[in-house]
Amino acid sequence: MNNSLGSAYFINGDRLLSTIMTLATIGQLPNGGVQRLAYSGEDRQARQLIQQWMVEAGMGVRVDGGGNIIGYYPSRHSHRPAIAMGSHLDTVPNAGHYDGVYGVLAALEVVRSCQEQSLPLNHPLEVMVFTDEEGTMIGSKAMAGRINPNLDSYGLIEGKDIQTCLNSIGGNWQQIHQAKRDPHTLTAFLELHVEQGPVLEQAGTSIGIVTGVVGQRRYRITIEGGSSHAGTTPMPLRHDALVAAAQVILDINRLGNLPGNQVATVGKIEVKPNVPNTIPGFVEMSLDIRDLSENNLDDLMATLESDIHGIAHHTQTKINLQPVLNNQPALASGSIQLAIEEACGLLNLSHTHLPSRAGHDAQEMAKLTEMGMIFVPSHHGVSHAETEYTSPEHCVQGANVLLNTVLLLDRQRFNL
Amino acid sequence: MNNSLGSAYFINGDRLLSTIMTLATIGQLPNGGVQRLAYSGEDRQARQLIQQWMVEAGMGVRVDGGGNIIGYYPSRHSHRPAIAMGSHLDTVPNAGHYDGVYGVLAALEVVRSCQEQSLPLNHPLEVMVFTDEEGTMIGSKAMAGRINPNLDSYGLIEGKDIQTCLNSIGGNWQQIHQAKRDPHTLTAFLELHVEQGPVLEQAGTSIGIVTGVVGQRRYRITIEGGSSHAGTTPMPLRHDALVAAAQVILDINRLGNLPGNQVATVGKIEVKPNVPNTIPGFVEMSLDIRDLSENNLDDLMATLESDIHGIAHHTQTKINLQPVLNNQPALASGSIQLAIEEACGLLNLSHTHLPSRAGHDAQEMAKLTEMGMIFVPSHHGVSHAETEYTSPEHCVQGANVLLNTVLLLDRQRFNL
Repeated sequence: MNNSLGSAYFINGDRLLSTIMTLATIGQLPNGGVQRLAYSGEDRQARQLIQQWMVEAGMGVRVDGGGNIIGYYPSRHSHRPAIAMGSHLDTVPNAGHYDGVYGVLAALEVVRSCQEQSLPLNHPLEVMVFTDEEGTMIGSKAMAGRINPNLDSYGLIEGKDIQTCLNSIGGNWQQIHQAKRDPHTLTAFLELHVEQGPVLEQAGTSIGIVTGVVGQRRYRITIEGGSSHAGTTPMPLRHDALVAAAQVILDINRLGNLPGNQVATVGKIEVKPNVPNTIPGFVEMSLDIRDLSENNLDDLMATLESDIHGIAHHTQTKINLQPVLNNQPALASGSIQLAIEEACGLLNLSHTHLPSRAGHDAQEMAKLTEMGMIFVPSHHGVSHAETEYTSPEHCVQGANVLLNTVLLLDRQRFNL
Repeated sequence: MNNSLGSAYFINGDRLLSTIMTLATIGQLPNGGVQRLAYSGEDRQARQLIQQWMVEAGMGVRVDGGGNIIGYYPSRHSHRPAIAMGSHLDTVPNAGHYDGVYGVLAALEVVRSCQEQSLPLNHPLEVMVFTDEEGTMIGSKAMAGRINPNLDSYGLIEGKDIQTCLNSIGGNWQQIHQAKRDPHTLTAFLELHVEQGPVLEQAGTSIGIVTGVVGQRRYRITIEGGSSHAGTTPMPLRHDALVAAAQVILDINRLGNLPGNQVATVGKIEVKPNVPNTIPGFVEMSLDIRDLSENNLDDLMATLESDIHGIAHHTQTKINLQPVLNNQPALASGSIQLAIEEACGLLNLSHTHLPSRAGHDAQEMAKLTEMGMIFVPSHHGVSHAETEYTSPEHCVQGANVLLNTVLLLDRQRFNL
């Protein structure tokens, strides 16, 4: 069996677009957006529908302890590890039609196309719908065996603990460790997703071949100054926490703009007492910094810590930098990137390599197996908003790339 | 009659301190602080007590349309204009023992001392208790004839309109224009107050001779950027409103620190959407800038406007600067400053000249008559907090300066 396909295969574009529209009616908002929060009634309704469609496409369906829905489509060599695809159905509040759901429905469409066109497969296919990607990411974390066993660490979600949430969708907190997947049962994981950024559209490129999901670190920065009367306290006697914060914000922005692919953001700031005629005595703010290179993140944070030391001294404040999140970078597999590139070639689609700077379930799956991600353009880069949009043409192109990548990997992995 | 006193006169320090302690029980908080909001039951109780004490000190008492309490102590030349003294009894939330109330009680103590020691006066004395200094300053504004006739412009105070508030303390919104004082009936106004800043304490000086109440301008600054995903939006494509805000904050701080006596503060900032993983799309913040020199304020604001133009261009944001308050500077009378200096000499008290960077009723009275203010040290410069503190020694010293200044002015104005 040859490693290449000879010519391209195609999914049923109309059917794909129709399922996207159907899902957009579950949790539909008056403004055209969608809200399908994890564990909500809308989430359960969408999960029910996808399971029904999986069965109709000839798949065996199970729900693991993490609440993940796994559809299994057999091959002629059923003892071989599976090529898995998937994403999520839950959304943030006031979301659009594409984030997550597009990757799930395209994976389903790939299986439907294999079934319909009787394409011979060497590996089973699996379609995975991960639990609560927009929140805890507990689904893909459970599959990667990276669950925090402390129930309380998940807090309450809409007033319910994670155990209650998981049980409500057919998961099982008590048995969640059984969701951990044996790496030998998988040979690859593919996630097709909208870019959520402006890069592809601005470059006029159809397909993004993801080099990896960037590492993301989040910090809580607190600045203690001294609150006093904005009129009666002379400038040299002030310990203005907001002036110190402004210096930190600009330094973070400077580090973000150094040569490299990193992004760095202060998105949240709270000031006390926060009244016009009082010097701010206390500031708390967030830092979110992301890059594919851990070394670069280490270097940037070392520079920031040293800069902060100087700012604290200079402004006579106390500045504390406390890590609250550290997601390590997850590199995409080189051979999968090559397969995606070959698929783009077969389909005559322009493509470019880029990192994913948003988090995805794929970053957890990369701990289990070789991972690849395919991006399609997001109009104006808008994400997590009802105005999120990817054209029908791009939706269909991405799903075709997914199908051909699966078929290429199916041959290449068999011939290894 | 000689223009000088020969030797110093003294108030009854124990009695002054005892009345301060009595007032501190009206609206006393568990932490030792005081809360006596304008128009509250506590405010009315304090107003009742001061009127009783005024009567006992031989004063005629009236309440004008602005709710101001005016105690009148006659002289042997009752046709002459009065030397007025006063301050306010209302407090901010969680206040201390001294702000406002000290100036009222010291003025009362001056009259008690004149009565007790049968000091011959050429001018009537008036003790004024102004309405709602910490809020609308409607009392002293009414006396200066600077009332905004639009009831709605005062908003609601604890759910009540200004008319209801004034009526509850014996004022009269319908007749408030009658509170406007004929300038010919006054020859001077004196306000004794705690400094509310750290200058006197840090210099080890007993008495501050106020050169004027600084002008205060307040602005609302809005910055429109673009909100987008903190991961997926490359640094060069951002319109980060908080990065622009940080540049404006540091520029304002730089202007505050230029040579001069100005202070400039950003005390309040609100960011939208204010979440860690989204680039801030909108910022609203306050600017409070004060100086005794209007020209300097004009120059600083012209520089800021030009700087903001550059920042908006550079950060690709829209920045708007909207004035919300403009209190013009009120200069203290030169002859009153000299009289205070002479009183300090008689009492052998160290003194220095300084502007008042907080607002006071004296700034309104300066529009009617010659105005002077006397400051005593505030421990650590703390103000508007339950830890506000001025030592008994300094309280008594300040009241003695007030008494001797009144007696000096009484002679000097008579001999003009």
